[in-house]
Amino acid sequence: MKLVALYKKPDDPAAFDEAYFNQHLPLIGTVPGLQKTVITRFTRSLVGEDFYLMAEMYFVDESALKTAMKSPEMAAAGENLNTFASGLVMMLFGTEQKME
Amino acid sequence: MKLVALYKKPDDPAAFDEAYFNQHLPLIGTVPGLQKTVITRFTRSLVGEDFYLMAEMYFVDESALKTAMKSPEMAAAGENLNTFASGLVMMLFGTEQKME
Repeated sequence: MKLVALYKKPDDPAAFDEAYFNQHLPLIGTVPGLQKTVITRFTRSLVGEDFYLMAEMYFVDESALKTAMKSPEMAAAGENLNTFASGLVMMLFGTEQKME
Repeated sequence: MKLVALYKKPDDPAAFDEAYFNQHLPLIGTVPGLQKTVITRFTRSLVGEDFYLMAEMYFVDESALKTAMKSPEMAAAGENLNTFASGLVMMLFGTEQKME
C-alpha cells in the first residue's frame, strides 16, 4: 500500500525544491512504518495536464499506512507541506501490481 | 526513464477495466524495450483531484523510451487507447530517484 503525492508545477521550482528536498522529505523520513519513498521528476508532458513531481511512499499494508497517517510525524510533515505546496498537491492512497 | 500514464475516473469502470487489462496492456506488452509495467489502482483521494489508475512503463534509458515511442507497437497501443480512454489520460516522461 502506498501514499501518492502528485505536485503541479510550482511558480518557483528552485524554491519548491529547496523546501521539498531539504525540509519536507527529512520530515517524511521520520514517519513510522515508512519503508521507502520513490520520487519521480516529470521531464515532459505528452498528453493532458502537466505535473512537476510525484512521491510514492510505501508501507507494508493498509493498517501501517493508516497508523502513519495519524502519527504526529505525518502531522508535522503535513503542516510543513502547507507552507510551500498549498494548492499544488494531490494526495491519494494506492495499491500496486507489477506486470513483467 | 519511464512513461507515466495517469487516468481520471471513467464513467464505466468495468468497461474501462475490460478494455484496459484485456486489450490495451497486452498491446503495451509488445512495445520494444519495455522492461516492466507497474499499475497503481487509486483506492482513495485525500487532497485535490481524484485519479483512477496509473501505469508506469520502464525503459533502460531515454534513448530506449524515445525509440519505443516511435515504434509501430506503441502506435497500435495508442490507437487502441483512443477507443476507450480519450479525455481521461495524461501522459508524461519521468525519471526516478529512490530514497530508502
